[in-house]
Amino acid sequence: MKLRIIITGGTFDKHYDEIRGTLGFKDSHLPEILKSVRCTLPVELEINQLVDSLEMRSSNRQKILTSCKEAEEERIVITHGTDTMVETARILGEARLEKTIVLTGAMIPYAVSGSDAVFNLGCSIAAVQLLAHGVYITMNGRIFDWDKVIKIREKGVFEEA
Amino acid sequence: MKLRIIITGGTFDKHYDEIRGTLGFKDSHLPEILKSVRCTLPVELEINQLVDSLEMRSSNRQKILTSCKEAEEERIVITHGTDTMVETARILGEARLEKTIVLTGAMIPYAVSGSDAVFNLGCSIAAVQLLAHGVYITMNGRIFDWDKVIKIREKGVFEEA
Amino acid sequence: MKLRIIITGGTFDKHYDEIRGTLGFKDSHLPEILKSVRCTLPVELEINQLVDSLEMRSSNRQKILTSCKEAEEERIVITHGTDTMVETARILGEARLEKTIVLTGAMIPYAVSGSDAVFNLGCSIAAVQLLAHGVYITMNGRIFDWDKVIKIREKGVFEEA
Amino acid sequence: MKLRIIITGGTFDKHYDEIRGTLGFKDSHLPEILKSVRCTLPVELEINQLVDSLEMRSSNRQKILTSCKEAEEERIVITHGTDTMVETARILGEARLEKTIVLTGAMIPYAVSGSDAVFNLGCSIAAVQLLAHGVYITMNGRIFDWDKVIKIREKGVFEEA
Repeated sequence: MKLRIIITGGTFDKHYDEIRGTLGFKDSHLPEILKSVRCTLPVELEINQLVDSLEMRSSNRQKILTSCKEAEEERIVITHGTDTMVETARILGEARLEKTIVLTGAMIPYAVSGSDAVFNLGCSIAAVQLLAHGVYITMNGRIFDWDKVIKIREKGVFEEA
Repeated sequence: MKLRIIITGGTFDKHYDEIRGTLGFKDSHLPEILKSVRCTLPVELEINQLVDSLEMRSSNRQKILTSCKEAEEERIVITHGTDTMVETARILGEARLEKTIVLTGAMIPYAVSGSDAVFNLGCSIAAVQLLAHGVYITMNGRIFDWDKVIKIREKGVFEEA
Repeated sequence: MKLRIIITGGTFDKHYDEIRGTLGFKDSHLPEILKSVRCTLPVELEINQLVDSLEMRSSNRQKILTSCKEAEEERIVITHGTDTMVETARILGEARLEKTIVLTGAMIPYAVSGSDAVFNLGCSIAAVQLLAHGVYITMNGRIFDWDKVIKIREKGVFEEA
Repeated sequence: MKLRIIITGGTFDKHYDEIRGTLGFKDSHLPEILKSVRCTLPVELEINQLVDSLEMRSSNRQKILTSCKEAEEERIVITHGTDTMVETARILGEARLEKTIVLTGAMIPYAVSGSDAVFNLGCSIAAVQLLAHGVYITMNGRIFDWDKVIKIREKGVFEEA
């Protein structure tokens, strides 16, 4: 079984730029993470975009949908900013593709101590192998259907809607 | 859905004792990890034992089996040393409990840089929620049935048997 | 010999706020760092202010100078943002106090992987014990006099002026 | 000013071997550390040996002494296991070289979370630039003369003798 991981940026992949003193994007940490955690599953990595999900517009989400449609793989993990993850999940869910798609992300960047990125990635990689076709979000150790989840912004957690 | 995590020690939870200069056991890192990764799933933690799995004898494995039998929870994750994880999985698998049990562990301790512990925990927590009754191992991003897996010791990875 | 560490914020102590998704200030990491590195030297910690040094005004620097003057300790380390560290060092240097004062900081926050914060702190704590009265900066493993140093912003390093 | 860092192993550089499940030696982390902490000081790194200082014999210490004698640099940092650091310091101190030599090490390996390695390295690099000729130990944020220091093994700290 081969997976595709579609990388879209988000907090997960934010990088500290020491010259500017800001958090932004440079590369994805996914290749380094997959090696470090000793993942032996065949994974196709795709950097679809590197953006903060608050800045995603319709065209950004369409680009993700297009990648999901065109992917050869039936099982797809998407790393995504948490702020509009539910919105992108809805676009993908309504497209009713014959694929299993799991979105995940992080509240704290991989590069910052105390990050939830690697745990969430683990959840999503296991979940995508086991779930039926459909669109899901894995955050906080839980697995949500795309149309039954909200982010409680002031608590920084996802809950059933 | 409530999970039980049965902690048995293994590389996952090894701790560096700076006075003796050795790796051994003190406490489990699980409470700290679950908080840090922002897991909101109800989890019952049980420290069953803290041992190196190379030193596990029949009585150690029976103690794990007993805990699985007596657990109120239907879904159980077990953190376990990798060296004899397959052996314990077999004892549990042959018991054919009406439960979903996922064993996981780590090649590199949680407290050592480059650890696979948190990723493996994420995989196991997602998998245990989705799998049918039975006994499984999640390592290297993959999900194995208890009777179709071996550890390739010289490579430090699990493969299908 | 007792040291005072005057904390002023800067990149060194920046903290990731996972609800807002921004880097800012909350507490200082100094108590945790000093414990973790097993420092047995008596140290008096003073949170003077927690600001980005780009936002420091004259009154901020006067507050640091006042603390240096009033400190009982003869040897003082100041953690400070790198962008205007040279400017604060000049204010303190021109005051010609009968004290040894070493400013240090970090290009990458303590909480971000690959940080230089702990190394720089080590340099400053050793240097402040050995240097004659005066004002100094320790960054990049080097020790500079307050009036012979500049930050090369585009390279993110301090050099002799 | 150019420094030499003579690497001898010790807890500082211990590495976790995930196949064997043991702590041992592989390479030194010094090149990676010096880059990560943005040290711009010219440093000559020498891997003299990679051993646990409990296993050091007279010949091991003579090898360090020879390197100190033959080094072109006047200022030398030595990374060393803490258990017999005082003993090696004595051999070097009694040789009364016209050099400044600072020994340091770590109670917790660089690769283990909560390590004191980078802080101690920072202390030693600053101290070696400022001290007169002689032999010293920097541990716990303090600077000791080679003939006035002991390691209190049960506490894991160095104190004045």
